[in-house]
Amino acid sequence: MERKALKIRERGIIIGSIPTGENNCLIDVPGVRVGHKTIDEKTETGYACTGVTAILPHGGNLFKEKVVATSYVINGFGKTTGLVQVNELGQIESPIMLTNTFSVPAVTQGTLQYMLQENKDIGDTTGTINIVTGECNDGLLNSIREMVITPKDTIEAILNASTNPVEEGAVGAGKGMVCFGYKGGIGTSSRKLSVNDGRFFHVGCLVLSNFGGKPEFPFNRYFKNNLHYPLELDKAADGSIIIVLATDAPLSDRQLHRVAKRCGIGLGRTGSHYSHGSGDIVIAFSTANTIKHKQSSYLHTMKTLREDHSIMNELFAAAAEVTEEAIMNSLSQAETTVGRNETVVHSLFDLA
Amino acid sequence: MERKALKIRERGIIIGSIPTGENNCLIDVPGVRVGHKTIDEKTETGYACTGVTAILPHGGNLFKEKVVATSYVINGFGKTTGLVQVNELGQIESPIMLTNTFSVPAVTQGTLQYMLQENKDIGDTTGTINIVTGECNDGLLNSIREMVITPKDTIEAILNASTNPVEEGAVGAGKGMVCFGYKGGIGTSSRKLSVNDGRFFHVGCLVLSNFGGKPEFPFNRYFKNNLHYPLELDKAADGSIIIVLATDAPLSDRQLHRVAKRCGIGLGRTGSHYSHGSGDIVIAFSTANTIKHKQSSYLHTMKTLREDHSIMNELFAAAAEVTEEAIMNSLSQAETTVGRNETVVHSLFDLA
Amino acid sequence: MERKALKIRERGIIIGSIPTGENNCLIDVPGVRVGHKTIDEKTETGYACTGVTAILPHGGNLFKEKVVATSYVINGFGKTTGLVQVNELGQIESPIMLTNTFSVPAVTQGTLQYMLQENKDIGDTTGTINIVTGECNDGLLNSIREMVITPKDTIEAILNASTNPVEEGAVGAGKGMVCFGYKGGIGTSSRKLSVNDGRFFHVGCLVLSNFGGKPEFPFNRYFKNNLHYPLELDKAADGSIIIVLATDAPLSDRQLHRVAKRCGIGLGRTGSHYSHGSGDIVIAFSTANTIKHKQSSYLHTMKTLREDHSIMNELFAAAAEVTEEAIMNSLSQAETTVGRNETVVHSLFDLA
Amino acid sequence: MERKALKIRERGIIIGSIPTGENNCLIDVPGVRVGHKTIDEKTETGYACTGVTAILPHGGNLFKEKVVATSYVINGFGKTTGLVQVNELGQIESPIMLTNTFSVPAVTQGTLQYMLQENKDIGDTTGTINIVTGECNDGLLNSIREMVITPKDTIEAILNASTNPVEEGAVGAGKGMVCFGYKGGIGTSSRKLSVNDGRFFHVGCLVLSNFGGKPEFPFNRYFKNNLHYPLELDKAADGSIIIVLATDAPLSDRQLHRVAKRCGIGLGRTGSHYSHGSGDIVIAFSTANTIKHKQSSYLHTMKTLREDHSIMNELFAAAAEVTEEAIMNSLSQAETTVGRNETVVHSLFDLA
Repeated sequence: MERKALKIRERGIIIGSIPTGENNCLIDVPGVRVGHKTIDEKTETGYACTGVTAILPHGGNLFKEKVVATSYVINGFGKTTGLVQVNELGQIESPIMLTNTFSVPAVTQGTLQYMLQENKDIGDTTGTINIVTGECNDGLLNSIREMVITPKDTIEAILNASTNPVEEGAVGAGKGMVCFGYKGGIGTSSRKLSVNDGRFFHVGCLVLSNFGGKPEFPFNRYFKNNLHYPLELDKAADGSIIIVLATDAPLSDRQLHRVAKRCGIGLGRTGSHYSHGSGDIVIAFSTANTIKHKQSSYLHTMKTLREDHSIMNELFAAAAEVTEEAIMNSLSQAETTVGRNETVVHSLFDLA
Repeated sequence: MERKALKIRERGIIIGSIPTGENNCLIDVPGVRVGHKTIDEKTETGYACTGVTAILPHGGNLFKEKVVATSYVINGFGKTTGLVQVNELGQIESPIMLTNTFSVPAVTQGTLQYMLQENKDIGDTTGTINIVTGECNDGLLNSIREMVITPKDTIEAILNASTNPVEEGAVGAGKGMVCFGYKGGIGTSSRKLSVNDGRFFHVGCLVLSNFGGKPEFPFNRYFKNNLHYPLELDKAADGSIIIVLATDAPLSDRQLHRVAKRCGIGLGRTGSHYSHGSGDIVIAFSTANTIKHKQSSYLHTMKTLREDHSIMNELFAAAAEVTEEAIMNSLSQAETTVGRNETVVHSLFDLA
Repeated sequence: MERKALKIRERGIIIGSIPTGENNCLIDVPGVRVGHKTIDEKTETGYACTGVTAILPHGGNLFKEKVVATSYVINGFGKTTGLVQVNELGQIESPIMLTNTFSVPAVTQGTLQYMLQENKDIGDTTGTINIVTGECNDGLLNSIREMVITPKDTIEAILNASTNPVEEGAVGAGKGMVCFGYKGGIGTSSRKLSVNDGRFFHVGCLVLSNFGGKPEFPFNRYFKNNLHYPLELDKAADGSIIIVLATDAPLSDRQLHRVAKRCGIGLGRTGSHYSHGSGDIVIAFSTANTIKHKQSSYLHTMKTLREDHSIMNELFAAAAEVTEEAIMNSLSQAETTVGRNETVVHSLFDLA
Repeated sequence: MERKALKIRERGIIIGSIPTGENNCLIDVPGVRVGHKTIDEKTETGYACTGVTAILPHGGNLFKEKVVATSYVINGFGKTTGLVQVNELGQIESPIMLTNTFSVPAVTQGTLQYMLQENKDIGDTTGTINIVTGECNDGLLNSIREMVITPKDTIEAILNASTNPVEEGAVGAGKGMVCFGYKGGIGTSSRKLSVNDGRFFHVGCLVLSNFGGKPEFPFNRYFKNNLHYPLELDKAADGSIIIVLATDAPLSDRQLHRVAKRCGIGLGRTGSHYSHGSGDIVIAFSTANTIKHKQSSYLHTMKTLREDHSIMNELFAAAAEVTEEAIMNSLSQAETTVGRNETVVHSLFDLA
């Protein structure tokens, strides 16, 4: 796939001080896969400008090998599913799905079908499965009431998942999203931390950005001279962001929760005030320890980080940095998009 | 509708000391409606023994007139949707739906379609809507992998909702549920509290009971002599319960949360230890204050209870009592049921 | 020490079905120590009927070897200190102290002095220390406004700590406490769980009981015939209970939190409705994994339980059983006590 | 009192876009009072460089007229007392006290004595009282192990409280605090929001700043040219901040909690990553509705904000702005200070 536009670093805007991973991408966390399915077509009475994005914590059977996980609700005006169980058990056992608000049922249904197909025992000889689906409202560009996304589209997004660098911007679930009045959507970034023994830990982030009013955006934080920006939409601050954070650092679910909380710092630095009508939600997982679905022993051994080691504070800083940079990448890579009612949302960088 | 079996009180088992409401039923809270859709039929490769239950906080437009609400997760091995927003905003704006675990997407989809039909502005000129769907796993009696419930069934359950006394037992979402190895499902109970000025407040509860192992059940708490009980299933304690609590007492969402927490007392008194694999979740609302979807004023006036008044402790006791009695009513009214693989789950009272 | 009165089991009242530990006492969890300092004397203008109780998770340096810990607030009308840090880090690094409400500062001060004495580096070359002090209001029997307890009394309670079976009833922090209108205070109980490989895990509980109104107490749950009980105080339900739960099962802080939540089941079974004015708080720790204050490695290895193993559900049941039995032991062992204003609070078993 | 140094705005550094209140100070929220007691003297074996700060939500009897309140734990490595009850009841009934970590017991004791003196019924004919005391570790400059602060000092701070503009910098509890390696301590700021009917709401913030490592501080966010800054301490990021937020906007405790959460945005913008060893805690109250300690009616009427009104988002933005500016004011007004071991901590602006 050819990249449509520059990442924010390629525009000379450097966020934070920690080195990025090789691809400055969620997939720098070894094993993580991402797939998109984009929908961009006329419908009977409107226009479908939307999609699905699937994040797979690893390439194996996610139900049989669960990952340590947590979620953190920055602001809860949102309809993300599956978080009750994620927080009770500290684990995720399915792909993490992103889509528009009204397609959560179809996408959860499709993911469920996929997982049932892969695991004949679920709902028969073993228990049920918990699906995690996050969402933002793309109703400005997408005829969201028509609910065009099908379970089949969902399975396609999952099957598209690979360890290739992630396509960003107006793609997958990000197709119809709007950020600070400009075109937003999918963005990703990563950091690589070194410990004194030569080992490395990665922190990756993928966002679905759909929040912010223009007056909040701190132009002077990112741009030195006054360029001529395209007219932004007179869009209210309300909107949402789903932040998926991945790491191969060995963290317990409690530690991961602490790291996930720092994503709010990065979000705040882009100008957001976590507006009232925003579903700002972090879903985080660590690939370092997996938990087998069934095991004969009643004991589970895991290695976790010493929290008083400086690496913990570096993980905190990395979470803030990747969140901010992933948001900026969503703005940097999203192209001007025309949606329902002929609405045009410009790229922040169209005329800049 | 003819009642199939006796309520637990009619069997001489009295729970608690507070007087019941007129019907000892959730609908004793004025305005509350309940509707069922039961599915009981052969499928291509199995047997559908399942259903949907809809609880409507009032008879008006729930999106336009939201109710004060909260949720409390007793144990979070469950897939209930919508709780993130309920807890952020302290309100519910849709019917509360109950079904089996894998039908959550179809039921959420159907409820969404119903609400979009009723409100042309949602997702067009106003924001989105948050649907609350609770679930238990009826996979012992129901071929749950087949996911036979449709959005259409869901809308039927909503349209069936009325202020008539609720049908209990193996009906609606309760059709395939199992409790302490006996047939469980839908149960309901209520209490009526009087304040010194002659005013009354009601507390109603409806449960979807699907939890408990037989060794946990305290026979000697409920039965004085050793009757001959039918052979129960050798069923593990894991399972779930969804507890819907309604009141017309004027409570803030925080106060309602305190009351909801006391449902766990009633659950514990039936013998449950909130087992590991159980999704034990309380969804609570108060009809005393409604919140208009849009309003010109920036101020909202509400009356709430003084927490230091003895009525608060009575509400706590009532929440514990109605939860225990609703569970016992689900056992008392559920009939012996045959499901997939010719599995038979007996009524606790079949031979008693 | 000679035991003053019978434990509840010795009166023929058996709670639950899991075998008790050797002493049916918190100290059945290996390493745990308990010490009391009781104060019972006239003051200038009133009467001091109060005390301090210290629970030491192990016999070593608690700051240098921290234990995995959590807390769970059943009802938060209470002034317990230290919980913010316990929940952030999942560990306890000090003795757990119990006393009356207004003596929390003096007891925290005394414990701090003791720990600073034991650790010359705290507040000098290393950071600070977090003290956990729980409380109930013994103002009915104790002239609580006089705040007679000193830091010196506190250190005495800590130095009194031993692995001997705990003195129960009207002793230490329990001296002036009242439960269901009868004399309450300190009570303890334990359970011993076996795993299939012959290994045992212990669950111990110590309560400071000071809650409940007489109408809540389920006499018919515990007593078969109508004995003549002494006139109880016309005491409102408000009051508090601090529940200290210890185990040597290897639990993460999240797992321990799940277990701690089940203490509310046991409390509910005694008749409590977690009344409005009650500080009902669980403080739980596991001795199976300790965390060194400083360590060169950035990794920490710990064994935890598989949550899908049946031992997890047994721990849940054990937490409910020991809480109920510890409360009943506090009633069973507390003697009739005379306090300020010549107030008499009878033992439940005085005339029974 | 003469002001020692400039506020950050007087240095040309403008934070945010919302107009400040008249004094850019916590006391711009009508009724709020602040008092300090500073201790700066040799001790037998060290140096006392510490103090106490008291914030009074209003000038009346705080126990008899409680204010709506909440707390939000950004990072919980801290020893603040009283938060359990604040969050259960959504109210504060005492002065909010700030001091050093090891003086929490003495300051809580002193505040308790003051409140008992003012209210003869507490602990006698009515229940107990909940004291809120926040802390940071000033052990770099202060001989913290000596615990020189007395209950008497505490009462002095309370009696010093007035509606005069607050003295900032190295004063009261801020005397020995260090922020980003420079001298920090007390800082304050406010915002004034207008609603369409001509009414105004104020948001005020007072911080006790003691956090941050120098590499985190974003010099280029605040300073355009490279001035020559004094050598900062090689201080780790660990440390703490207590943020007290006040408003006269009529908010429920849940709404106030949402606003308090946004203080973390302002903290993050100053460069903080909420470091591991930091107790970053927000205590927030609204003076718009007070709750009488006793009242005959069982109903309580309160006006709260409509959350979908734009004023809610403005309150969110204001919370972020005042937190950042209060921190910058603590740096701007704190003078170079010499403490124990002849340690010198420079003002950020000493040589700038």
